[in-house]
Amino acid sequence: MKYSQIFTKTDKNAKKYDSANATLLTKAGFIDQTMAGVYTFLPLGTRVLRKIEGIVREEMDKIGVEVLMPALSPKEAWINTGRLDEMDNLFKVCGANELSRRVNDAEYILNGTHEEIVTPLAKKFRRSYKDFPFALYQIQTKFRNEGRPKSGLLRGREFIMKDLYSFHTSIEDFREYYEKAKQSYWNIFERLGIKDETVLAAASGGTFTTEFSHEFQTKCETGEDLIFQVPSTGQAFNREVAPSKAPEIVQESEMREMEHRNEPGIIGVEGLCEVFNIEAHQSVKTLIFETDSKESPVVVAALRGDYDINEIKLMNIVGCTKMRLASEETVLEVTGAQIGYAGILNLQEGIPLYIDDSIEPLVNFECGGNRTDYHIINVNWGRDVEKPKKFHDIKIVKQGDRFCETSEVYDTFKASEVGNIFPLFDKFSKAIGYGFVDKDGVEKPVIMGCYGLGTTRVLGVLVEKFHDKDGIVWPYSVAPFHIQLLHIGGDGYKRAKELERELEANGFEVLWDDRDGVSVGEKFADADLIGCPFRIVVSDRTLASESVEVKKRNETESNIVSLDEIVAFLRV
Amino acid sequence: MKYSQIFTKTDKNAKKYDSANATLLTKAGFIDQTMAGVYTFLPLGTRVLRKIEGIVREEMDKIGVEVLMPALSPKEAWINTGRLDEMDNLFKVCGANELSRRVNDAEYILNGTHEEIVTPLAKKFRRSYKDFPFALYQIQTKFRNEGRPKSGLLRGREFIMKDLYSFHTSIEDFREYYEKAKQSYWNIFERLGIKDETVLAAASGGTFTTEFSHEFQTKCETGEDLIFQVPSTGQAFNREVAPSKAPEIVQESEMREMEHRNEPGIIGVEGLCEVFNIEAHQSVKTLIFETDSKESPVVVAALRGDYDINEIKLMNIVGCTKMRLASEETVLEVTGAQIGYAGILNLQEGIPLYIDDSIEPLVNFECGGNRTDYHIINVNWGRDVEKPKKFHDIKIVKQGDRFCETSEVYDTFKASEVGNIFPLFDKFSKAIGYGFVDKDGVEKPVIMGCYGLGTTRVLGVLVEKFHDKDGIVWPYSVAPFHIQLLHIGGDGYKRAKELERELEANGFEVLWDDRDGVSVGEKFADADLIGCPFRIVVSDRTLASESVEVKKRNETESNIVSLDEIVAFLRV
Repeated sequence: MKYSQIFTKTDKNAKKYDSANATLLTKAGFIDQTMAGVYTFLPLGTRVLRKIEGIVREEMDKIGVEVLMPALSPKEAWINTGRLDEMDNLFKVCGANELSRRVNDAEYILNGTHEEIVTPLAKKFRRSYKDFPFALYQIQTKFRNEGRPKSGLLRGREFIMKDLYSFHTSIEDFREYYEKAKQSYWNIFERLGIKDETVLAAASGGTFTTEFSHEFQTKCETGEDLIFQVPSTGQAFNREVAPSKAPEIVQESEMREMEHRNEPGIIGVEGLCEVFNIEAHQSVKTLIFETDSKESPVVVAALRGDYDINEIKLMNIVGCTKMRLASEETVLEVTGAQIGYAGILNLQEGIPLYIDDSIEPLVNFECGGNRTDYHIINVNWGRDVEKPKKFHDIKIVKQGDRFCETSEVYDTFKASEVGNIFPLFDKFSKAIGYGFVDKDGVEKPVIMGCYGLGTTRVLGVLVEKFHDKDGIVWPYSVAPFHIQLLHIGGDGYKRAKELERELEANGFEVLWDDRDGVSVGEKFADADLIGCPFRIVVSDRTLASESVEVKKRNETESNIVSLDEIVAFLRV
Repeated sequence: MKYSQIFTKTDKNAKKYDSANATLLTKAGFIDQTMAGVYTFLPLGTRVLRKIEGIVREEMDKIGVEVLMPALSPKEAWINTGRLDEMDNLFKVCGANELSRRVNDAEYILNGTHEEIVTPLAKKFRRSYKDFPFALYQIQTKFRNEGRPKSGLLRGREFIMKDLYSFHTSIEDFREYYEKAKQSYWNIFERLGIKDETVLAAASGGTFTTEFSHEFQTKCETGEDLIFQVPSTGQAFNREVAPSKAPEIVQESEMREMEHRNEPGIIGVEGLCEVFNIEAHQSVKTLIFETDSKESPVVVAALRGDYDINEIKLMNIVGCTKMRLASEETVLEVTGAQIGYAGILNLQEGIPLYIDDSIEPLVNFECGGNRTDYHIINVNWGRDVEKPKKFHDIKIVKQGDRFCETSEVYDTFKASEVGNIFPLFDKFSKAIGYGFVDKDGVEKPVIMGCYGLGTTRVLGVLVEKFHDKDGIVWPYSVAPFHIQLLHIGGDGYKRAKELERELEANGFEVLWDDRDGVSVGEKFADADLIGCPFRIVVSDRTLASESVEVKKRNETESNIVSLDEIVAFLRV
């Protein structure tokens, strides 16, 4: 194909965005931002996207069957699962003006995910144990009301996703399929050239289970996630769920005298450290939560001052699905003090107290006084407060922390999510009453899993991963063209034309830079920016020996290859 | 592929919808209605859709380049072209609940067409005369707030469309491309098997031009459009724009005496005919309109009582872009009477009067008295009212009418639209200020065309067109599978499995009905319902002679074909 026909032009002065993918894809003419978080795929971008979709489709066809669900759905479907008012990124659709609303004033949901559609659909067709297992997938556009779209294709309000849903009669069967799906994902990432740089990281399984879901995370300096990996086993976790054991900190050997100190107006842990001249890790942060648990409507959590609370971990331990910091009144009731002075001494009787294991080794630590304006310093286990039988891990992991089971310090690295797989168990089948009739004639809830992979997102991650100072470096499998062809000098044009035809006849996709009035230097720069795997230059100089110059985008040296051997050379 | 893996089951008891496509596609398991006008494509339907898309893409790649524009767009884009408040099927998008609106309370447009997106996009990249012509297309989901979605895939609120936009520096260049695009459409319809049954019909060009747009209309008994075709030339028109000359009607030779009759309370033309004992075609309907024309803010139109006014024709003659029936006050001013008594005698001076040519030959006709409660009968040209120098064609054509130029009676037939192509001229380029710099350095407005083809709609039309009492009869090019394979008897299963493999290895797509516990009769019925081009039965009886039974879906007789020759037989 001729460069003059691909519509776009490279734009060296294009706006610099917050991410390499947005900047380079815009500069090179792959995408165009229509508005924040919403992009047009230009011809080059569309070609890459179709190739990614092709790979995903081939692998998915081995473990599921393709459907295409709509983007619009009835509100009722979302009322049935309780998510209509719960999802903070849900969009709705209605008439845009008076005329349109007069025609039809109904409101619909613009789907950001399809559990609400696929579960009733499956229920229509598959009700007997003989019908299981089965899996449906689609490659389809999703819409989410992101507060702050960012990082180009990585987090937008409109994006394309492959979503797969699997249906099973037992958890065992689900688990077996889950492993199969994992393998399909690995196949996809291998074909995209990122398998070796991708890890499977445990992530939160949501509020309805303590089990993990899993994210495929590709190592990437500009990645938005921080991954914690156990060196000896390769097990990986995202920050949200990584079990955490604090590094050891040297403590004083002698207990000091405990003091109640009247210090009004201290703000934050930093203020505390300054006033009492202590390190943050010598202080204890005590937090009061209200929960949706009937047994424990109020709980107290304490952790070292240099850690943040991990509500997912705490909720899993408490056994609740919602949690928020307690109101002023509740805090007053539980601690006898205003907010800001909670501590672990003299709390109201009977309130469950969860203490993070980071506090266990502390000697002479500080905590709130449970009395307005008061803090206590030099608190010690045993002498001042009874040491609990059990400490918990309720903190958000930090770099330098250790994996609880083996006490190894985690390897940590930045990464970008390229896929996630998720056990749904019976969450949605229960919500909409989708059961199967088992061999014994008894109806039982269907077990489900879902498996996402954002094709537009993956395109963005590939650019984050594969670029250098000059532009994009596409993996061969998804490059918009295999070869960018340039010509120099009088004979070049004619011979380039012949070569384009020959290479295309041999199955190569060629982008021939046929532009007039553009300097050779500019064409070279554009070839680097666009990033096709091979650049071929046809010039009078090379033609003198009936050859061309071939350079791989990811190598610095070029090769002179005889025209007779060019096809064979490229096939290697 | 095994039938047990395609997820759906046929459902003989499925709801009967208002159209063959909705009913048959649902019954056979190709689609599932999510809600009114919104469908899920099930595995069989997805396969057909992908094949249609493939054909469309191949033909479009010859005359344009593929992009993918977003479904969401900023409101500003629609304010710029003045369509935000004008389009009665425009959808908008916003947060679905409190939480979501708190995250981001902006509103967006959910695109039903893409002129508002593609024109600014083209403007970004193509500004010099050297950059023209070019054309961009996409295959993408559209959303329209239809008041009454109907006819299954033919008119929905969400559908998939190929839309192509072309950009030119001159009307001549545009016209040349328009012909090229027509040819691409014919190529597509040939590959879909509907070319011979499709006509290109002229349709309204919209309010900004008197030129026609064109619709590709496929003859179809259940079609929603009525097409008028000139027998001698093949020229076709849709009902909206077909030029119309009324059939000749015998008139009395003698003029009768004109009478002013006081007849209050007559309702409609029917009432009139009863009271005055005349035929509808002997009455004259006079209508007063208010327009957006500065020269002619009020116009009067008169046509025979058995015709309806064609506002498009009238607006083209008047030279205005908006028109509505006049208010009571205006009618009183113009006619001196209340609504219902307008006639062509004694109208207010200076108001333009347009009289349909159907009235020209009338003798002794009736018309309103321009006096409340009064009608006049036995009105005659010359004697009672001056015969205008020019009559017009301002009526909606009826079956039996003639083509004005040749006076031939039209052939009329029902049809379904499968594509439409539309001159936009400078409507959108002017609205958003998209000009190109010409050779002479002067900026001139870009000329545009747009070219639509609904891929989901075409799928529906194919079913309307190709079905019989037993089910769908797919054209080979888009059939979900080429062959439906059945086995009967003990050896059948094993040999069917072998045959499936052999046929697939030879490039045929096979749907093997591997179901247990389903009778042979039911499988035969399902094969007819699903409608693959070939049905192959492997049974002990045919295997006795190492052969199989092959039946084409569109033939009644089957053939016994030796297993050695089956591949060759199917290739013919």
